[in-house]
Amino acid sequence: MPESRTILGGDLPNVPWQDRPEGCTRVMWRYDANPIIPRDLIPCANSIFNSAPVPYDGKFAGVFRVDDRRRSLRIHVGRSDDGFAWRIEPEPIAMTGAAPEVADSGHYYDPRVVEIDGRYYVTWCNAHHGPTIGVAWTEDFRTFHQLENAFLPANRNGVLFPRRIGGRFAMLSRPSDWGHTPFGDIFYSESPDLEFWGRHRWVMGRKGGWQALKIGAGPVPIETAEGWLLIYHGVLLSCNGYVYSCGAALLDLDEPWKVRSRCSEYLLSPQTPYECVGDTPNVVFPCAALTDAATGRIAVYYGAADTVTCLAFCHADELIDYIKAHNEV
Amino acid sequence: MPESRTILGGDLPNVPWQDRPEGCTRVMWRYDANPIIPRDLIPCANSIFNSAPVPYDGKFAGVFRVDDRRRSLRIHVGRSDDGFAWRIEPEPIAMTGAAPEVADSGHYYDPRVVEIDGRYYVTWCNAHHGPTIGVAWTEDFRTFHQLENAFLPANRNGVLFPRRIGGRFAMLSRPSDWGHTPFGDIFYSESPDLEFWGRHRWVMGRKGGWQALKIGAGPVPIETAEGWLLIYHGVLLSCNGYVYSCGAALLDLDEPWKVRSRCSEYLLSPQTPYECVGDTPNVVFPCAALTDAATGRIAVYYGAADTVTCLAFCHADELIDYIKAHNEV
Amino acid sequence: MPESRTILGGDLPNVPWQDRPEGCTRVMWRYDANPIIPRDLIPCANSIFNSAPVPYDGKFAGVFRVDDRRRSLRIHVGRSDDGFAWRIEPEPIAMTGAAPEVADSGHYYDPRVVEIDGRYYVTWCNAHHGPTIGVAWTEDFRTFHQLENAFLPANRNGVLFPRRIGGRFAMLSRPSDWGHTPFGDIFYSESPDLEFWGRHRWVMGRKGGWQALKIGAGPVPIETAEGWLLIYHGVLLSCNGYVYSCGAALLDLDEPWKVRSRCSEYLLSPQTPYECVGDTPNVVFPCAALTDAATGRIAVYYGAADTVTCLAFCHADELIDYIKAHNEV
Amino acid sequence: MPESRTILGGDLPNVPWQDRPEGCTRVMWRYDANPIIPRDLIPCANSIFNSAPVPYDGKFAGVFRVDDRRRSLRIHVGRSDDGFAWRIEPEPIAMTGAAPEVADSGHYYDPRVVEIDGRYYVTWCNAHHGPTIGVAWTEDFRTFHQLENAFLPANRNGVLFPRRIGGRFAMLSRPSDWGHTPFGDIFYSESPDLEFWGRHRWVMGRKGGWQALKIGAGPVPIETAEGWLLIYHGVLLSCNGYVYSCGAALLDLDEPWKVRSRCSEYLLSPQTPYECVGDTPNVVFPCAALTDAATGRIAVYYGAADTVTCLAFCHADELIDYIKAHNEV
Amino acid sequence: MPESRTILGGDLPNVPWQDRPEGCTRVMWRYDANPIIPRDLIPCANSIFNSAPVPYDGKFAGVFRVDDRRRSLRIHVGRSDDGFAWRIEPEPIAMTGAAPEVADSGHYYDPRVVEIDGRYYVTWCNAHHGPTIGVAWTEDFRTFHQLENAFLPANRNGVLFPRRIGGRFAMLSRPSDWGHTPFGDIFYSESPDLEFWGRHRWVMGRKGGWQALKIGAGPVPIETAEGWLLIYHGVLLSCNGYVYSCGAALLDLDEPWKVRSRCSEYLLSPQTPYECVGDTPNVVFPCAALTDAATGRIAVYYGAADTVTCLAFCHADELIDYIKAHNEV
Amino acid sequence: MPESRTILGGDLPNVPWQDRPEGCTRVMWRYDANPIIPRDLIPCANSIFNSAPVPYDGKFAGVFRVDDRRRSLRIHVGRSDDGFAWRIEPEPIAMTGAAPEVADSGHYYDPRVVEIDGRYYVTWCNAHHGPTIGVAWTEDFRTFHQLENAFLPANRNGVLFPRRIGGRFAMLSRPSDWGHTPFGDIFYSESPDLEFWGRHRWVMGRKGGWQALKIGAGPVPIETAEGWLLIYHGVLLSCNGYVYSCGAALLDLDEPWKVRSRCSEYLLSPQTPYECVGDTPNVVFPCAALTDAATGRIAVYYGAADTVTCLAFCHADELIDYIKAHNEV
Repeated sequence: MPESRTILGGDLPNVPWQDRPEGCTRVMWRYDANPIIPRDLIPCANSIFNSAPVPYDGKFAGVFRVDDRRRSLRIHVGRSDDGFAWRIEPEPIAMTGAAPEVADSGHYYDPRVVEIDGRYYVTWCNAHHGPTIGVAWTEDFRTFHQLENAFLPANRNGVLFPRRIGGRFAMLSRPSDWGHTPFGDIFYSESPDLEFWGRHRWVMGRKGGWQALKIGAGPVPIETAEGWLLIYHGVLLSCNGYVYSCGAALLDLDEPWKVRSRCSEYLLSPQTPYECVGDTPNVVFPCAALTDAATGRIAVYYGAADTVTCLAFCHADELIDYIKAHNEV
Repeated sequence: MPESRTILGGDLPNVPWQDRPEGCTRVMWRYDANPIIPRDLIPCANSIFNSAPVPYDGKFAGVFRVDDRRRSLRIHVGRSDDGFAWRIEPEPIAMTGAAPEVADSGHYYDPRVVEIDGRYYVTWCNAHHGPTIGVAWTEDFRTFHQLENAFLPANRNGVLFPRRIGGRFAMLSRPSDWGHTPFGDIFYSESPDLEFWGRHRWVMGRKGGWQALKIGAGPVPIETAEGWLLIYHGVLLSCNGYVYSCGAALLDLDEPWKVRSRCSEYLLSPQTPYECVGDTPNVVFPCAALTDAATGRIAVYYGAADTVTCLAFCHADELIDYIKAHNEV
Repeated sequence: MPESRTILGGDLPNVPWQDRPEGCTRVMWRYDANPIIPRDLIPCANSIFNSAPVPYDGKFAGVFRVDDRRRSLRIHVGRSDDGFAWRIEPEPIAMTGAAPEVADSGHYYDPRVVEIDGRYYVTWCNAHHGPTIGVAWTEDFRTFHQLENAFLPANRNGVLFPRRIGGRFAMLSRPSDWGHTPFGDIFYSESPDLEFWGRHRWVMGRKGGWQALKIGAGPVPIETAEGWLLIYHGVLLSCNGYVYSCGAALLDLDEPWKVRSRCSEYLLSPQTPYECVGDTPNVVFPCAALTDAATGRIAVYYGAADTVTCLAFCHADELIDYIKAHNEV
Repeated sequence: MPESRTILGGDLPNVPWQDRPEGCTRVMWRYDANPIIPRDLIPCANSIFNSAPVPYDGKFAGVFRVDDRRRSLRIHVGRSDDGFAWRIEPEPIAMTGAAPEVADSGHYYDPRVVEIDGRYYVTWCNAHHGPTIGVAWTEDFRTFHQLENAFLPANRNGVLFPRRIGGRFAMLSRPSDWGHTPFGDIFYSESPDLEFWGRHRWVMGRKGGWQALKIGAGPVPIETAEGWLLIYHGVLLSCNGYVYSCGAALLDLDEPWKVRSRCSEYLLSPQTPYECVGDTPNVVFPCAALTDAATGRIAVYYGAADTVTCLAFCHADELIDYIKAHNEV
Repeated sequence: MPESRTILGGDLPNVPWQDRPEGCTRVMWRYDANPIIPRDLIPCANSIFNSAPVPYDGKFAGVFRVDDRRRSLRIHVGRSDDGFAWRIEPEPIAMTGAAPEVADSGHYYDPRVVEIDGRYYVTWCNAHHGPTIGVAWTEDFRTFHQLENAFLPANRNGVLFPRRIGGRFAMLSRPSDWGHTPFGDIFYSESPDLEFWGRHRWVMGRKGGWQALKIGAGPVPIETAEGWLLIYHGVLLSCNGYVYSCGAALLDLDEPWKVRSRCSEYLLSPQTPYECVGDTPNVVFPCAALTDAATGRIAVYYGAADTVTCLAFCHADELIDYIKAHNEV
Repeated sequence: MPESRTILGGDLPNVPWQDRPEGCTRVMWRYDANPIIPRDLIPCANSIFNSAPVPYDGKFAGVFRVDDRRRSLRIHVGRSDDGFAWRIEPEPIAMTGAAPEVADSGHYYDPRVVEIDGRYYVTWCNAHHGPTIGVAWTEDFRTFHQLENAFLPANRNGVLFPRRIGGRFAMLSRPSDWGHTPFGDIFYSESPDLEFWGRHRWVMGRKGGWQALKIGAGPVPIETAEGWLLIYHGVLLSCNGYVYSCGAALLDLDEPWKVRSRCSEYLLSPQTPYECVGDTPNVVFPCAALTDAATGRIAVYYGAADTVTCLAFCHADELIDYIKAHNEV
């Protein structure tokens, strides 16, 4: 599969990659040396997961969720030469520039990172009398400029689009509650300036099976000829708790709140020991995807069992065909 | 009390008024012919309550919550010569101008109305895959232009300030859940254009006793020399359900998310038969206040038992003194 | 309205009746001397409500729910000359003939009574390791022969049709839970012999507004030229509990699980003191209807506030027209 | 009924009294001028209820629950010449002598008062990181000496016996939870010194009908020839909340955790407007009983609807006969 | 143990079997090559478990629960020569013959299969506006004739007896709720024709320890000289969810709702990795048993962790002795 | 670290011990042959965990929680020569001497053992119409003399101090509810005689992160020069249930309800397979600690996954320094 007909951006020849194993027929497959980051890579860490690498300066940088041994939720900078082996900063990110009322929220988790016009924007689940979407930017992964929170509580899983839509910044998010949130649909919002947000639109909701309880956007949407490729998580409530799986949909390029196709099957569900056993059993939680437009290779970073960081792979064309073949909007 | 030292706006000599009854020592007292609007004033109505009059064209107009006999939640225009006797339009308001995705939500309740620069803005609890704040404006109480919803769900009790603050529109609201919401604090948000909202700030939360479960803004804040006078509702959870009472606080004029004083006592709690018996027993829910700056007279419109519309009265100076004397921020 | 075009049975010239009050425009109106049975008509009674009169021997007899002063739930025989004034037996009904495993359940409530082929069948909410539908018959309102319970728990509001359908007995019921049941749809079942039941079909479910939480069949369905006239209760969940109202639908005569029309508005909701105040505030619960085919008069017996027994009236033709005019299936 | 055969103490010729009304056949009947204390007898009061008078100095004194207009829970001293008309102190009781860790709990409610050896002991629902039983004593109803809390949280309805049992102080109480407690049995505990408590014994639990959810001791037990006469409250959970009624049992004189008889019927349930409408609808909550041994007259003080204070009456001999006649242990 | 004194039917010399391991003293032991069916034996499968083989045509056939990768619940036919190695059909069973109102329910799970008079009857958890018991029959495991659902919702774990009792078909089932059902007793019902059901009797309920939350019938009851041998599942609620274990009881042969003995200990609880880790951790769920009357060998098929299919073994005589030795009815 | 500067008692040269592994930097580390007791060490056992060894007669004895195969909760005596290898008695402990009302409670779990003045006191979670703290003593680990239960229900995790404080026995405990208790703080109580308890004081509550839901005392507090060293468990609520970790604090020696320092980090959280997989996944539950004052060695016995018994180790001085370095009171 030397060339992809679909991906419009993300030209990344050094995207982390491992070919599909012999005999495997799945559209997405795991890296065979998962997890790539163990829970205790740095001394303070209880767990390192739900994290967001991006290409940076010919190599890779990213923002990583590191819960410390108080089980406080923090985000740290990480760096890598190849996207597989990571060095995580020992200290959490200290933001700068926020209004005093919203700074120092004490909670930072489930970050996503996207480059727009040369700046790297970080969104994460922040706290301001309830969970909401924090927004910051950096140019060097050293200084992070915190902006206003995007929304009122309660909200989680805020994910920016990689470019303006209709001239405005655009974000997916999932209105939530103050706890473990036994519901959840994906909404779309726009902003002229990343400070004020509006034009809120419902995008899609739960839909039975692996996504019967709630859903939330995963990696930054990937622009393709067929629409925005949205990899997302869906949750099923078993009698023993939540099960997080990974699925995908295609959103309209111009009006992304319109779903063009949505894969009825999950792409990845918790089946390995490192996904089924850990601080939260049975969790596959994708937060980032790196793509190579030329080959259509996509590397998906996901947290497993709320404990470790893992990699999975797919081909863009195959995935889009699969979504359309299993479409149930 | 011929002159008020405090109120800065709302010059309304014909404000509805009845003097404090003999022997009454309360800072707020009920109209003795309550309710002013019975539940079945118009044929389709199950109940008429939680409504919002404003001065209009020398007389009065307003937006009224009218639940119909399907128990669907609708808002209707009402008109009055004196603020006591009301004529309610038989048909609900039909909004115009909204994007198709957010129009025709099917739920319209708990409206507030405020004049800003000659336009009358209505905010209400709207539905868009969850409760949120609808916004519309009218100049004639005939055509209502619906704007974008202010926030993502779930939100209720959105109340605009009567003028721009720091050059921006400002709104109080209460993030909620999808049901009867057993929690709730008041937040503050700003908008340059009533389309995009941000700079969200927590204002105040529950505080024991009559406001131990949740609170929500009531009438449009009243500008005074001592700050924004905010009349609001607080809720206590008894073993037999919610009890809604009416209280008050003073917010900073320039930074209204800063509470200057907050009255520890309720001003009005459900004690009369029309407040204690009805579709929802034990509810006093203030939604509008008319003021006369010269005399300091304030007339508060409130819904009782989610069934009928009532009036209560107070003097601005007395109330402000009372808040400060019973202050517990 | 001397003649009714619709009712096919129930020729009862002495049906209890009071004309619609002057000025009233409602399709169903209350008896002005409600309640007809006070809570303490007999010494042991805590309350008398949710009861089921039928024409009997030229006068009236019926089965009445009488909660005693232990708040145990019992059913008693009542008798009346005119349908307004009732004599309730001081002792509860003692059933005979049941298998020992299901006899003496200890719970008897919300009875319905219907004559089929000269026997008076009673259905009620019985207990057998959970609420279920008890069935018995009498010919004299003295000896009651208890049959097998119709269903496995949990079920309530079992109501027999007044004749066989397709050659079989037919019953509406509402699958429930073991407590106050915050959900509930109406189902239809058939039996060749009143002992074994099957061919279960879903009929209709909750539908927003006054019937948003659950619904349940009320009086025995009334056969009309337009279908089975089903008067039923619907429940809305307020923040202060359940509100029970009365509504109506028309079911297909031959396949009664098919709803032909359904009135979107309630016919009666709790609005009077005797409906709003009592052991369970805000309850209107219809359990029986007497009809006069010649005039179309319908007298509806309903429990109010789970405390007393009341009467309301309507015309069959008017009601059917009203259902069709406000139809939302 | 000039002489009682049963009551062993409480010689109080001036016990408040009103004969049973004509035609009434109930074993307990209401005072016809209820409520004796309105909700706003003193200016700060939101409600005055669940209160505990005792004979004092030839007249009457007592401790009254007065919720203020913050809906904070406080106890005040009250005095009366005749037990009907009361003067309530405008300021709450300020306790003295408690260890700093447990003083100033901020919650004082549902007091009981009993004289033992010339001291008047007050028990109430106190707060120490959860509800528990506060204990204090006074000799003059001016200075109240606070002792240690009797138990760890969560506990409510602590009621002392009027004399030592087996040489030790004895208390009934009801282990609870931190909220509205949807369960609750009565337990018995002993103390050599009112500081340390032990020898805990279960006395009785919920039992269907009016007492199906929970029960709690009411007035101080009354010593009789047939055992300790315990008037208590029982709670039923309706779909619209809790219903509090009043019942009675007889406990063994020497081993009071052994129930000798227990009345299956309630004595009083909420049926009047002042019991059914108020801050908590449908509450009858007895907290004190005054007795005259010579005549067997008993006056029961009870709170109604968590709003006002009321009186009911019964004869000791009649009541004991009634309990035994309706006994279901 | 060459001969069994107890089993009256099920003459199956080729019953799958593995002797008790050295040193094991348990009455039931696992197959050492468990699981016999992996979660992904066929391409569409997410998991294959809770399944029901029967002897068929000298070999084995069965109905298998196969959740697909949408996590939709489906049943498939499987075939085997030896009962260990299975071939599962790639497509789910398509039923025929049901009334349109109840066909195509969309949910098919937890099947049981039993031969009665040469027909193989399948019961499963079906959906008809709630979970209920679907019934179908086949003679060739190719065409499945769907009958009426046995009961109204909510019901699960419907299990037919292998012969008529008192001339009627007989079924065990467990009334449930619409979700994960935190309660559940086993009931017995009869039918003359598999269309209409009645004569419902309570059989047994939860009983502490491993079966403290709920119980449900497992394999088709096995007829023995000592009564119907019922292998069933019991559920314990830990702070981390449900734990499903396997136990056994003996029911009266003629009146199977009468429990003759009940083993207080579980026979098998989740202890192996394949039982403790998977889509639902800590689940052992027996659905079928094959027996050889001559030797008393019993092979139990059970689902593990809602993910895979496993085998365990026991001797009939030993098991019956064990039940009686540990009897606590 | 040949000498400890801190521990004041527990001179136990043969304390079980294993040096910190190479490269490990944690203040507490696991025994590398964990678990030391498998779930099925004795035939009746389902699991053996949450257990309490003490030095006894130069060797070791202890009380062990053994859930049997009914999943009934029992305590057994165990003996060991070295503290690693244990022999558990096959029969549960049979207490003697309790009043009949509180004997034979049927529940015995989570024991602690402490020697005071030559007697070995056992406290455990007992049942008396709810969970409470049982107390007994033995001198020979053969005869156990049961005393009165310490408290009214609901309480768990009662832990005695190893000597009198202010002349009285002292106990930590955690008021609870009747189920899995989603809250919980540690309280302190005193008794002159182990029969009557009082002077209850709140010690500390939940505190975010790993101890955000509830906390409970673990081993008997260890007397040190810096205060009572309290090793305790804290619980976090994930979307898949409770996670139990182990932490530590220092309490004032004379007023142990005053916390001197409290370690913000956990010492041990469930990370190994035997802690993450079992009857209750993700549980580390410390119940006993053996100390050697000369060397400062501490051996902590803890239950893992509510299934097996494990050992961990730390140095007293290091631990106390760590607590103080990470102090967040």
